[in-house]
Amino acid sequence: MQRYKLTIEYDGSRFYGWQRQPDFVSVQQTIEDAIHAFCGETAEAYGAGRTDAGVHALGMVAHTDIAKPTNCFTFMEALNFYLRDSGISILSVDEMPADWHARFSATQRRYRYRILNRRAPEVLTEGRVWRVPQELDTSAMKAAGKLLLGTHDFTSFRSVDCQSKSPVKTLDSLEITQYGEELHIDIAAKSFLYNQVRIMVGTIVAVGKGKQPAEWVTTLLQTPDRTQAGATAPACGLYFVNVEY
Amino acid sequence: MQRYKLTIEYDGSRFYGWQRQPDFVSVQQTIEDAIHAFCGETAEAYGAGRTDAGVHALGMVAHTDIAKPTNCFTFMEALNFYLRDSGISILSVDEMPADWHARFSATQRRYRYRILNRRAPEVLTEGRVWRVPQELDTSAMKAAGKLLLGTHDFTSFRSVDCQSKSPVKTLDSLEITQYGEELHIDIAAKSFLYNQVRIMVGTIVAVGKGKQPAEWVTTLLQTPDRTQAGATAPACGLYFVNVEY
Repeated sequence: MQRYKLTIEYDGSRFYGWQRQPDFVSVQQTIEDAIHAFCGETAEAYGAGRTDAGVHALGMVAHTDIAKPTNCFTFMEALNFYLRDSGISILSVDEMPADWHARFSATQRRYRYRILNRRAPEVLTEGRVWRVPQELDTSAMKAAGKLLLGTHDFTSFRSVDCQSKSPVKTLDSLEITQYGEELHIDIAAKSFLYNQVRIMVGTIVAVGKGKQPAEWVTTLLQTPDRTQAGATAPACGLYFVNVEY
Repeated sequence: MQRYKLTIEYDGSRFYGWQRQPDFVSVQQTIEDAIHAFCGETAEAYGAGRTDAGVHALGMVAHTDIAKPTNCFTFMEALNFYLRDSGISILSVDEMPADWHARFSATQRRYRYRILNRRAPEVLTEGRVWRVPQELDTSAMKAAGKLLLGTHDFTSFRSVDCQSKSPVKTLDSLEITQYGEELHIDIAAKSFLYNQVRIMVGTIVAVGKGKQPAEWVTTLLQTPDRTQAGATAPACGLYFVNVEY
């Protein structure tokens, strides 16, 4: 058996999320089917993260073990052949030691959220951004973002369906950058709670619209209650960017 | 009658180009139909440029004259309502004097060409870039681009179907910028010959692949012959960016 690291781009709009599940098309299952088509083995693809339905990836990482003798380039080319027109592309394949784990060896995960801040509908970035037509106060958004940094009880920022034992997480960075009509919110942490990034973005956007002051974030962190935070931002604007090991 | 300037984004993959023609869906006809739906008038939309089938626009400009009393915001909202799901978005509407002309008042047009330089297939930018899998020598590409600047006989860089009287044009700027795996070629001129941008890009990419040295461009400019220049780069990577007046 040889362990391989796969770096993966996918169009989240075509899948019911990363994780394999009966009756729905998942990224994981689609990749496992391609591995099987290549080597005839039933190998699992362990992802570094589990993205929700509709969430995209620019650099998801997974590992898989196969017995068939091959090399990284051949494996990548074969997977991309079997994955053609699937909405998944294998960006690179690397050989890894057997104790390396896509999920447990990860030290940091990065997400990007793309907001298109304009009135007119988007056509060239349809399904790739969250369009917010109202004027946004980016200074207030940046102030709100700063308050989320560090170690906190993120109960207000996790889905009621979140199954993590602890709601305490450490946010390493959160940067808001303007590119013309787009705002990118880049967020990094070792790990995230279920829907945490999307609820943080929804909260920051509520501040940007002037519905709440930036200091509202501090209240949300001090008073754990999901019903008080902003709405969950739509999946289509969210990208799993990369993983650090 | 009031003249209005429309600034327009469109997804070129959904149209047989800008110009109205029988039996094919054009951007111009689709916009004229939306104007008619709004005011009941048969108004022409005069574009600043005529993009080919498949070419996108981030900021095409057109003008139209209508009699119905309205204001710019209402007109924009109404057009976007009638254009919903068409692949066209009206970014802004401005009132203009009757002697202002989208095409003849233009002093500069800008295009961008997006190249994705990698081996793995694109899924998130499918239909939005030209993927070139071979390694590209960007220094050589920049050197080739510089040689195109200024006033030249661009016969080698125009389609055999080009109907312009003169092949002499002046290229104001050509900049090649790398953004991760993407290369953007930004090109500006008062006007262009038919397929000129795509043939220039195809030629620059041939230099980038090492098929020809940068100085080849000088030969092509000195010896007018379309058959000697590079292939016409695909439409899907080309964007009409904006117009200066």
